[in-house]
Amino acid sequence: MTMTHDHRVPVTVLGLGPMGQALAGAFLDNGHPTTVWNRTAGKADDLVARGATRADTPALAVEAAPLTVVCVIDYDAVHAIVEPAAGALRGRTLVNLTADTPERARGTAAWAEENGVRYLDGAIMTPTETIGGPEAVVLYSGREDAYLEHRATLEALGAGGVYLGEEPGRAASYDVALLDLFWTSMSGLVHAFALASAEGVPARDLAPFARGIGSLLPIVIDDFARNVDKGDHAADTSALVSALAGMDHIAHASRARGLDTGVIDAARAVARRAVEAGHGADSFSRLTETIAAPTSPA
Amino acid sequence: MTMTHDHRVPVTVLGLGPMGQALAGAFLDNGHPTTVWNRTAGKADDLVARGATRADTPALAVEAAPLTVVCVIDYDAVHAIVEPAAGALRGRTLVNLTADTPERARGTAAWAEENGVRYLDGAIMTPTETIGGPEAVVLYSGREDAYLEHRATLEALGAGGVYLGEEPGRAASYDVALLDLFWTSMSGLVHAFALASAEGVPARDLAPFARGIGSLLPIVIDDFARNVDKGDHAADTSALVSALAGMDHIAHASRARGLDTGVIDAARAVARRAVEAGHGADSFSRLTETIAAPTSPA
Repeated sequence: MTMTHDHRVPVTVLGLGPMGQALAGAFLDNGHPTTVWNRTAGKADDLVARGATRADTPALAVEAAPLTVVCVIDYDAVHAIVEPAAGALRGRTLVNLTADTPERARGTAAWAEENGVRYLDGAIMTPTETIGGPEAVVLYSGREDAYLEHRATLEALGAGGVYLGEEPGRAASYDVALLDLFWTSMSGLVHAFALASAEGVPARDLAPFARGIGSLLPIVIDDFARNVDKGDHAADTSALVSALAGMDHIAHASRARGLDTGVIDAARAVARRAVEAGHGADSFSRLTETIAAPTSPA
Repeated sequence: MTMTHDHRVPVTVLGLGPMGQALAGAFLDNGHPTTVWNRTAGKADDLVARGATRADTPALAVEAAPLTVVCVIDYDAVHAIVEPAAGALRGRTLVNLTADTPERARGTAAWAEENGVRYLDGAIMTPTETIGGPEAVVLYSGREDAYLEHRATLEALGAGGVYLGEEPGRAASYDVALLDLFWTSMSGLVHAFALASAEGVPARDLAPFARGIGSLLPIVIDDFARNVDKGDHAADTSALVSALAGMDHIAHASRARGLDTGVIDAARAVARRAVEAGHGADSFSRLTETIAAPTSPA
């Protein structure tokens, strides 16, 4: 199959929060006739000024294009918007870029199937500012025919579109796991700044070294991924017991400064359970198995 | 002051675990006459084969060089080794690259001062494999005269030596904050792999996207650092209340798969406290202040 990007393909965007506005803006920038709808109609003003068409209802918006993208706060909001437009969506493609759990994605896919709607569930992995550019990463799963038909149009959203297969929950599975890494790391970052601040170290002084810590991540990610897939967590140089000693220092220093220690204490509890189960000489990647067996030693 | 790297300056290394061996190896590679000691003498065999001199006691090792580097499991081990060698250390420089809390660093600095030992407390921020190379990062704090005198020799350990000032606990303050970021992020990584695995996603499939998440860190670090230093946490696009919604999805999906949720639950508790205190529209960086006031709403 050959495909060329036909910039005349109309697109509809439902939901005009910061991300929805970025999505609609990217379609406009690529020359697509773009119809928009938002519960608060005023949010469409800037887009209309850039050439978008405002629709009065979701159903009218859907009828303007073969492809509708929805991006709102959660799946309850998605259903409140698309269910009254089910008739208009029949035979058309709905791409849901709202973030939620894999279960919700599968539930919405089942609803779409029952209503003759071609459904793709997606997850946007990069910030609003990246949309339309080379750094945007958007994951899709669900109806392959719908993805292939609209792939060229969806490329307007950015270079990094990735189709993960027919299982509609797959994009949400990646999303929730990657957000797990992101928000836990962010929790570590704000705690690191709090600890440094309690020691009189300005955040700007710590920041260059924090970036250095971040630059270690790619190596560790690949190393741990190999261990996890093999189920073999033999450590090369750094063992779990050393990690636990380091985490104990962090908790001790934090507590001595009156800081909240909930996150590091929870992380230590997992590591300690693995050490007590005899895995102290293993790689930190062993904790993937400990986390999966929370009620008994892994 | 001009300084040239005099490769004939002798160096002593006490403690020959994986890191101690890497340190001694880097001095040898740079041509420094290197004396080594380890409680289990056999650990010195490889280094002796490469040209190092084995000493029978810490005191004899210390007497062989103006500069002694110690890197062992913790500060209790440091004191057990250096206190019997206090006479030999008098007037010499001791660089302690063992990881521990700022309090312990200050305590050891006080002991060194009382005993006429010129003391530098250091922290190694990069893995064993980096030592001696361009990627090694080693932080130092304490006696500036000692640092200036031995800086050229310490450069043998790698390009990234940084002196943080006279306050002897400063290197340990950076160390504990950066390890806080590192181990919390690692806890997020193993949890992300566990969650993906429960969804049937192999770690190798998630890894490229996890690296992508890691590549977002530098931008966020600089953004949060600015907010923290200004004490102004106004969000531009992504607000704390959205982060909390995302963390709730992670916790819900994890619990539904029987995974341990201790870390994400603790992270949510901090975020929820900030939202309940009226900071829901703020940046996630606001949590730095919430963490610093754990017993009352920040």
